[in-house]
Amino acid sequence: MTVTEQPTGTPLADEEVAALDAWWRAANYVSVGQIYLLDNPLLERPLAAEDIKPRLLGHWGTTPGLNLLWTHLNRLIRERDVDAIFLAGPGHGGPAAVANAWLEGTYSEIYPAIGRDRDGLQKLFRQFSFPGGIPSHVAPETPGSIHEGGELGYVLSHAYGAAMDNPDLVVAAVVGDGEFETGPLAASWHANKFVDPVHDGAVLPILHLNGYKIANPTVAARIPRPELESLLRGYGHEVLTVEGDDPADVHRQMAAALDTAHDRIREIQRAAREDGDTERRPWPAILLVTPKGWTGPATVDGVQVEGTWRAHQVPLAETRTDDAHRGMLEDWMRSYRPAELFDGDGTPVAALRDLAPAGTRRMSANPHANGGLLRRPLEMPDFRSHAVEVTTPGGSIHEATRVLGQFLVDVVRDNPTTFRIFGPDETASNRLDAVYGVTDKVFAGAILDSDEHLARSGRVVEILSEHTCQGWLEGYLLTGRHGLFSCYEAFIHLVDSMFNQHAKWLKTTRGIEWRPRISSLNYLLSSHVWRQDHNGFSHQDPGFIDHVINKKAEVVRVYLPPDTNTLLSTMRHCLASEHYVNVVVAGKQPSFDWLDADQADLHCARGLGIWDWASNDDGDPDVVLACAGDVPTLEALAAVSILREHLPALRIRFVNVVDLMRLQDEHEHPHGLPGRDFDTVFTTDKPIIFAYHGYPWLIHRLTYRRTNHANLHVRGYKEEGTTTTPFDMVMMNDVDRFHLVMDVIDRVPGLGSRAAGLGQLMVDTRRRARAWTREHGDDLPEVREWRWDPAAEPGRGNSPSTTADTSADF
Amino acid sequence: MTVTEQPTGTPLADEEVAALDAWWRAANYVSVGQIYLLDNPLLERPLAAEDIKPRLLGHWGTTPGLNLLWTHLNRLIRERDVDAIFLAGPGHGGPAAVANAWLEGTYSEIYPAIGRDRDGLQKLFRQFSFPGGIPSHVAPETPGSIHEGGELGYVLSHAYGAAMDNPDLVVAAVVGDGEFETGPLAASWHANKFVDPVHDGAVLPILHLNGYKIANPTVAARIPRPELESLLRGYGHEVLTVEGDDPADVHRQMAAALDTAHDRIREIQRAAREDGDTERRPWPAILLVTPKGWTGPATVDGVQVEGTWRAHQVPLAETRTDDAHRGMLEDWMRSYRPAELFDGDGTPVAALRDLAPAGTRRMSANPHANGGLLRRPLEMPDFRSHAVEVTTPGGSIHEATRVLGQFLVDVVRDNPTTFRIFGPDETASNRLDAVYGVTDKVFAGAILDSDEHLARSGRVVEILSEHTCQGWLEGYLLTGRHGLFSCYEAFIHLVDSMFNQHAKWLKTTRGIEWRPRISSLNYLLSSHVWRQDHNGFSHQDPGFIDHVINKKAEVVRVYLPPDTNTLLSTMRHCLASEHYVNVVVAGKQPSFDWLDADQADLHCARGLGIWDWASNDDGDPDVVLACAGDVPTLEALAAVSILREHLPALRIRFVNVVDLMRLQDEHEHPHGLPGRDFDTVFTTDKPIIFAYHGYPWLIHRLTYRRTNHANLHVRGYKEEGTTTTPFDMVMMNDVDRFHLVMDVIDRVPGLGSRAAGLGQLMVDTRRRARAWTREHGDDLPEVREWRWDPAAEPGRGNSPSTTADTSADF
Repeated sequence: MTVTEQPTGTPLADEEVAALDAWWRAANYVSVGQIYLLDNPLLERPLAAEDIKPRLLGHWGTTPGLNLLWTHLNRLIRERDVDAIFLAGPGHGGPAAVANAWLEGTYSEIYPAIGRDRDGLQKLFRQFSFPGGIPSHVAPETPGSIHEGGELGYVLSHAYGAAMDNPDLVVAAVVGDGEFETGPLAASWHANKFVDPVHDGAVLPILHLNGYKIANPTVAARIPRPELESLLRGYGHEVLTVEGDDPADVHRQMAAALDTAHDRIREIQRAAREDGDTERRPWPAILLVTPKGWTGPATVDGVQVEGTWRAHQVPLAETRTDDAHRGMLEDWMRSYRPAELFDGDGTPVAALRDLAPAGTRRMSANPHANGGLLRRPLEMPDFRSHAVEVTTPGGSIHEATRVLGQFLVDVVRDNPTTFRIFGPDETASNRLDAVYGVTDKVFAGAILDSDEHLARSGRVVEILSEHTCQGWLEGYLLTGRHGLFSCYEAFIHLVDSMFNQHAKWLKTTRGIEWRPRISSLNYLLSSHVWRQDHNGFSHQDPGFIDHVINKKAEVVRVYLPPDTNTLLSTMRHCLASEHYVNVVVAGKQPSFDWLDADQADLHCARGLGIWDWASNDDGDPDVVLACAGDVPTLEALAAVSILREHLPALRIRFVNVVDLMRLQDEHEHPHGLPGRDFDTVFTTDKPIIFAYHGYPWLIHRLTYRRTNHANLHVRGYKEEGTTTTPFDMVMMNDVDRFHLVMDVIDRVPGLGSRAAGLGQLMVDTRRRARAWTREHGDDLPEVREWRWDPAAEPGRGNSPSTTADTSADF
Repeated sequence: MTVTEQPTGTPLADEEVAALDAWWRAANYVSVGQIYLLDNPLLERPLAAEDIKPRLLGHWGTTPGLNLLWTHLNRLIRERDVDAIFLAGPGHGGPAAVANAWLEGTYSEIYPAIGRDRDGLQKLFRQFSFPGGIPSHVAPETPGSIHEGGELGYVLSHAYGAAMDNPDLVVAAVVGDGEFETGPLAASWHANKFVDPVHDGAVLPILHLNGYKIANPTVAARIPRPELESLLRGYGHEVLTVEGDDPADVHRQMAAALDTAHDRIREIQRAAREDGDTERRPWPAILLVTPKGWTGPATVDGVQVEGTWRAHQVPLAETRTDDAHRGMLEDWMRSYRPAELFDGDGTPVAALRDLAPAGTRRMSANPHANGGLLRRPLEMPDFRSHAVEVTTPGGSIHEATRVLGQFLVDVVRDNPTTFRIFGPDETASNRLDAVYGVTDKVFAGAILDSDEHLARSGRVVEILSEHTCQGWLEGYLLTGRHGLFSCYEAFIHLVDSMFNQHAKWLKTTRGIEWRPRISSLNYLLSSHVWRQDHNGFSHQDPGFIDHVINKKAEVVRVYLPPDTNTLLSTMRHCLASEHYVNVVVAGKQPSFDWLDADQADLHCARGLGIWDWASNDDGDPDVVLACAGDVPTLEALAAVSILREHLPALRIRFVNVVDLMRLQDEHEHPHGLPGRDFDTVFTTDKPIIFAYHGYPWLIHRLTYRRTNHANLHVRGYKEEGTTTTPFDMVMMNDVDRFHLVMDVIDRVPGLGSRAAGLGQLMVDTRRRARAWTREHGDDLPEVREWRWDPAAEPGRGNSPSTTADTSADF
């Protein structure tokens, strides 16, 4: 071990080396078998063609390194009774995790059909990467895993999320040198600036430099070693290097490195917990340098394989058809000396079995890697105590997210160790800052007197990396806790692919009985497309919703609460829910309140509904005005106001949608409104004008099976924007009140000619609004000052008026 | 200046300091004016309420730092005739870029209405962040910009892309310490391992440590300075630190740092170019440490503003209504001594004007920042010379992307300095490796004898960071060149948000006359959802298409070529196109050829069409079988084959879609097929069974306005997957041939009862296929060995058969 400082443990005795090497050989043997074999698992006869899988699918290259680390972490766990879990950044090394889980006995406990014997071993081999079997990666099906690793970049952020509020936990996180090049991983090294050494556990990053990716050397392996060490020190780590290709030597180095790392971790924690010394010090990290595909075939067909990129997947490709390849495979597997490792029944020998930690100390059986086991429901405060008083619709104004912040104060207070809020420096910008009354932002860097709400401990975690925030929250949820990610709407697209992977995890684990459900991943998207006042076009994008609903209906939910109380009710529901991804879009700017607490709760429970106080259709509308989202709701209500004043005979039904999934067919989504109910609300033949928060075609996509779809006309964001006023933004996208009135006039049969005057007034008013805004830099006063007037009658109210008679008898 | 080594330039004379300070003061003055003022631009009278904008929208905090850097880069450019461009990572500091462009005269040249005088200054101030004016960021409207900076993280990858193949160019790239925390930025530091010092220009990263983000200190500012320096050295840089808050002192440090940095750059380049010494050495980087909001109000209402996060946006919020605030604003602006900077007409004084570099040496006028000016069309080889011979549909098999690789050989050869291929270690995996016959992968790290195709120069650029690849390509295109990004389909979602920003840039610049068009951004997505053989569910996601088409129709194109020749024709078209984002999805596995070169070219030109050889409808079909994507095309043709054999009287029309945008209404997309033509192809009343590559609802979204939409039935990927066989994958998602046949039977009126036998055969065959696959680990032989048989007749052919009579008279 090359370390700056001396290792702190006792050197390994020869018999210890031999024991560790036996486990490692066994894990390697069981890994190779998974990749290649259908049968003959103990090589009790020479390998025959029919023993080999017809399709060889998997990855050998990273596997021996993962097995080495598992082997040695087990030693540490045994000797020091460490509570540890294992996250394999190179998750494509799935055979390693499965092999160790089987050796530890966990696999057979969870999957009784796969015993810890010859028959079980044969089934274990056969099922890997095989139709009807298990995936090639460290998948949800793998015991001990919370990290699939298929999409690279998230192992450290997952690890730090898992360690939060688990003071005794050590999370070993293997970073492949390929993954090392990704952006999300590069950013997540800085997660160590947000560790609270008193209340959090520790992450032990292990950078495995095996030198190659699929077809290239890695950057980290081809820069001078001092440069790489400088980088890791710059990330805030003490570097313990383990390097070599002689197993016994590497075993000795690795044992010493792990002992040292563990001593360092415990000393940092002790100093913080006992001495109150929370000054950030370098956490240990291990740099492991071993050949890619170590112990596999050195050369194949005259070409070097071990120690090159060629070892990435399956080193011997023709083992079913080529006798020489098959012979090499057999030699390779026999090199692990299986006869020493398994008894006549194929069970690992006792000496090997004894090397596994006991019970839940086994990393494959640690409950932290199956968070649903540990999860307790959130202590849920009563949202009504924070509901705003609403005596009349539109009679008051609140900032929805600011009020939500007050509700979150209670959530934080009542769940002091199991709930966190994550955000990319936007918690205050999104106006949730009331929470700073009861907690702080956690930060392990230097804190100045001039800082506000920054402390060594806290429930709010902020770094300017959406990737790290998402990874933290995923890690926190997967280990059984609760949380919220507050983000600007446009930039949540940064984690599109992370969301994909988490949604896939949720989908798959719904079918895995031994994994109890975890808490939902909750997004609060604020500073949304319609109100990005300080910024422009780059900050305007409502497309995350579209992205989310491509995933399995049973795991995704999207909510667009139109006002403060509906936001409170929605968020209460989301925080209590399990195993979903909930997307909540809500504005932070001052907006009208429409519903009181009871109405809001009922409306949210229904998901969509007719607002009677804004309707005058008496059950038989001429037109349905529908809306989803806070700004579209405002514009739609203003349009109703204008229509009521100028066309009092027009029968309008006003529908608000808070749960977007209600629009889908009940066969498409569990929240889907049954067809008959949908027809009752939206009619089967009347025009529907729908003002929507996001891209308009999404509403068509959700409703294309509905009876009245042909009469549906949607307005929404059509990718027009810049730095301008709020009303100019809606005008640029034709979702403004005046345009909605024009749409009604165009769509209601027979209305066009009779309401021509009103139509012209709308055209003129839009022109006037545009001119006013360009001259004054603000919105038309009659727009800014508009209020819902329930008593609006022809000739009064505050909708645009003209001396010309625009009212039509209808 | 704190540098490890001595600065190499001559210390600045006092009058030089004064001159630089004057420019800086002028730029700061013009920046503040933009944020606040409607009128009174020269403060010729005391500021009145009506001089102030009603909505104060912009960002001051980063602006003085950007102005400082622009000031000093101008000195370097003047003194050494440097060809340089400026990329502002903190693009929200838009006022700085606009101010400098105006001071340099470029602004008035491009926008004659905004003169370099009092009237122009007033208009310049008023238009900023004002309705009908310009955005608050360094937007496409800003002269000299190729980097909006609204979404943080891409400044270095853009910069390195711009520097490629521009050997004399220096790209100054300002990294904000907020942006520093993002993943994409963290990864992109390693872009310096891909610089070819002989043929590429240089990037000068400038990390601006102003200490704060929106509401938090930055990580980089709160770790010990040696730790940060260690990190930057680990990233491969020599660190030149400029730190202070005394302007004269900082001016001296900055001039010395820039001289030193430039000397270092030129020495590295000279050694490589003249001595052939291409060993990678640390490139210089500048660490600039100055207060956030420097020179702005120190305290406001008793609270510290300068040097804290409170300076991020608008430090004085109430200047329109609060006389004291307005007085502070006036004091602030007068502190820059405008009377010394502008003459009586408001024109910058001659001494100031003389500080601007001349002509295109001005960073605001450098043509590299307006790539369309420099762009020359790609030299396009004839794709037909690489077309595969196809004498009969399905008569041969090729790997489409491998043949494309041969075409790319010619593209690379004919465009040796203006075309590059970018990829996250997947160029060979996606089977484009023929290009290594004429070029290499560029790499500046250590190269071993065992490496293949790795060299100091090369047209292929690979790092395991999709973000860096995307940023490189964007920077390369924005400076007037051509390129291709080859990526696994699932993981292109990593750059969803980068695509968003680039699409917004393209949309906006379509309306900016002085920006000629640039080359399209071309994606080749391979290793797609249906054939991710070595991996599983995590690698299966076709949703990027859905994401892309949310953007403006005039800038996005999506192609799904069904075979090798259509891929060649498509890619030839995409590489020649301008100002689009082209998404091409194509498989890499051996697949049938359907069309010869002429047929392929015609089919691609039409975008969709009836394949007569697969149809027997004689102009009057009973059913339309449509498809898009290589695997769905195979399944649809196999379904036709079964139907032809068993139901010879059934009149089938076979339609293949290669240009997905043809499905949309002509009013929705420029490629949209006119309604009448669509109805001719798809009929107005016959069932359409559509086998689609991606999420099926996308086809509904694209066609919901079409006459026959109610009869459209789409099969596609419904988020079911794992590591399994190719045919099991299509079966899991019901897009397999047998299920398509069942769909036809279900949908064609009257067919159900008559074809019950065939339906049952399909059910049985699927069951048999599933069982076979689970037993043998491979697909059913009759599926693996299936071939299109144009002479298929009842009772013969190789579709599933049974002794029972399944043919129906229809």
